[in-house]
Amino acid sequence: MVKIDSARLMGDLKRLADFGRYKTGVHRPTYSADDMASRHWLAGRLAEAGLVPEIDGIGNVLGRVPGSGPRVLAGSHTETQNHAGWLDGSLGVIYALEAARAIREAGAPGGGAVEVGSWADEEGHFGHFIGSRSFCGEFSEEEIDRSSDRTLGTPMRDALKTAGLAGKPRARLEPGRYSAYLEAHIEQGDWLEANHLQIGIVTSIVAICQYRVTFEGTQNHAGTTRMAIRRDAGVALTRFCCAIERRFPEVAGPRSVWTTGRITLDPGAPSVIPGGAEMLFQFRDDNPEVLARLERTLFEMAAEADKAGPCRVKAEALRKSTPAVMDPKVQSAFDAAAERHAPGKHTRMPSGAGHDAQYFAKYMPAGMLFVPSIGGISHHWSEDTKEEDIILGAQVFATAAADLLRRSE
Amino acid sequence: MVKIDSARLMGDLKRLADFGRYKTGVHRPTYSADDMASRHWLAGRLAEAGLVPEIDGIGNVLGRVPGSGPRVLAGSHTETQNHAGWLDGSLGVIYALEAARAIREAGAPGGGAVEVGSWADEEGHFGHFIGSRSFCGEFSEEEIDRSSDRTLGTPMRDALKTAGLAGKPRARLEPGRYSAYLEAHIEQGDWLEANHLQIGIVTSIVAICQYRVTFEGTQNHAGTTRMAIRRDAGVALTRFCCAIERRFPEVAGPRSVWTTGRITLDPGAPSVIPGGAEMLFQFRDDNPEVLARLERTLFEMAAEADKAGPCRVKAEALRKSTPAVMDPKVQSAFDAAAERHAPGKHTRMPSGAGHDAQYFAKYMPAGMLFVPSIGGISHHWSEDTKEEDIILGAQVFATAAADLLRRSE
Repeated sequence: MVKIDSARLMGDLKRLADFGRYKTGVHRPTYSADDMASRHWLAGRLAEAGLVPEIDGIGNVLGRVPGSGPRVLAGSHTETQNHAGWLDGSLGVIYALEAARAIREAGAPGGGAVEVGSWADEEGHFGHFIGSRSFCGEFSEEEIDRSSDRTLGTPMRDALKTAGLAGKPRARLEPGRYSAYLEAHIEQGDWLEANHLQIGIVTSIVAICQYRVTFEGTQNHAGTTRMAIRRDAGVALTRFCCAIERRFPEVAGPRSVWTTGRITLDPGAPSVIPGGAEMLFQFRDDNPEVLARLERTLFEMAAEADKAGPCRVKAEALRKSTPAVMDPKVQSAFDAAAERHAPGKHTRMPSGAGHDAQYFAKYMPAGMLFVPSIGGISHHWSEDTKEEDIILGAQVFATAAADLLRRSE
Repeated sequence: MVKIDSARLMGDLKRLADFGRYKTGVHRPTYSADDMASRHWLAGRLAEAGLVPEIDGIGNVLGRVPGSGPRVLAGSHTETQNHAGWLDGSLGVIYALEAARAIREAGAPGGGAVEVGSWADEEGHFGHFIGSRSFCGEFSEEEIDRSSDRTLGTPMRDALKTAGLAGKPRARLEPGRYSAYLEAHIEQGDWLEANHLQIGIVTSIVAICQYRVTFEGTQNHAGTTRMAIRRDAGVALTRFCCAIERRFPEVAGPRSVWTTGRITLDPGAPSVIPGGAEMLFQFRDDNPEVLARLERTLFEMAAEADKAGPCRVKAEALRKSTPAVMDPKVQSAFDAAAERHAPGKHTRMPSGAGHDAQYFAKYMPAGMLFVPSIGGISHHWSEDTKEEDIILGAQVFATAAADLLRRSE
């Protein structure tokens, strides 16, 4: 039976959190000096574990096992959001490393092995899921040319050069090599904690639909323009937001979520009536019917507001993904492993966040495992998970990986 | 009788608009190269008109008339908001120049004369009403030390040095020298135009009360955090804005105005629930009782929202001015001049915008005259006034100045 080494697991997780430490969290944006140092460290740890390490031309860190026999691919990402938590992404990469080591030590039938991938820029500093898309052949050179850092504005080509990655080849998925892709992650919500559970087995990854809603009014002096004749784009925007809070609960599904993450008033000066306003709005669900209903409602609301005046209102889709269904056999393997190590403490659930697994799901059976997030907090430096939950999750993950290797022999 | 030269007036106004021309407007921020060139041009025009010009250490351009006799001070400002209109400020300065010239040509009894002031940075690139406050002795060296350009961040000391003003003395108001301060300005609203009037005589300059309202929620992942447990600071802010639009009309005066000019969500990312939000809110009125009622309402609303939750809400005053009453005798002089040149086409009205006159009103009788703004537009490059209204306004202004000089002889 596969048995993880919990001290080794926790040691690696804590060591990884040293790179770019910020309060109790981490600031490690893609291709930053701290990020690249952590990738080189990971490559070293893969080598020490007997895997053949590679850092490819997009920053993906791979640990391969030469020879024949069943292969399972496991991984996640190591860069972080700005000033964010120590486990988001890192947990999945170290779980993959620990599963590879533990299975190697236990010996898998038929030379089976776990290979490890740490996918660059899942957090979207330069784009969306760049590393996994590159590995799957869905990220072109032209897209690299036109991408830049959303915080610093650095062109991606310059960032790759500074990171020492310019000119290096990009690794590509070898079709048919892997029987499954596995990814572990913190839940980033409070569902497991609120229900006193320790393991979540992901059924699907929700789709994210993102929109820009723009409001066009008339810029004018905030002191001399009577209230009656104003066309205040900021007032139109805040009214629209309040209308969303009234209307969306009526048409949403039980697990739908929606968020206005950014609001900009133009020109944004205290004594000027905003002549323009813009909001970034997104919603998520794993049910295509619900997604269609939410989009219809948003566009109807924009049309109604535009017609009612006094400002022009326009909603436009920026990007829309489709829900990614996790493989039933992988879900079963996670179920069995969870029931063995944490009987009655696991549940199936959708993932409200996007993950690299949604891209791999197009090319092979894919599955995800969640561990609880304390207070449901993530994308913040205070993000954390109980140590016993981290260790249990790694054991369930390794057991399921070994089971899938055995089954695919 | 004093008679202005309309061709000379329009020529100077149009020449001044050449400095920093932007579309049909002007981009001439304080101490920029274009701004300084325009100040030197103005000093030249003052000299040609027989006044003694000076550009002082804060950038004020003064045109004085040596000798004894009654003196009226007239002026406004020549710098502009970023990418703004050609008349805001400039109109008042050229009116003052034209009144000085016309009265000099007509000859005022007892050696009376109009002196001209163009006050630096009324538009607040570095502070608020810096030039007029400096002239009145209300702007210290320490305030210069800690001021910087709100757009570029340039320290004021550096900007003064680049502008060639470092080390120059600052001119100071000589107590008792002037019998009145007069300022003309475009209305910046649509009241005159909407009522088919050509001259507004300002009764008072409204007070501006400005507040920061902050909302503290919990930053979290926009995909994984259920709607029921969110503490979304952005939602709290937009609700607060909608509540303002419901409550303020019930407690406002007939001419009260209120504006949310800036909204910031923190961190402002599309996939992150805002953990913090902030708005800059201001209201204006010339009635102290109304101002007190509006402030009370704002603080009550913040306390109610804070109590209701789920976010913490706090409102704090950033700055509060007091209404500045215009001198009755100056208003009468404007009334008489307006009735003479535009019978039935003038009205008394408060000023919704702040002006240098509000500082001078503390030290001498002060008054203001408005001309119509087409469509009520200002602080935008499309700002304009009909040429016939510009010429009429200049004539009324010069007639009133001559009248006040005669009366103070």
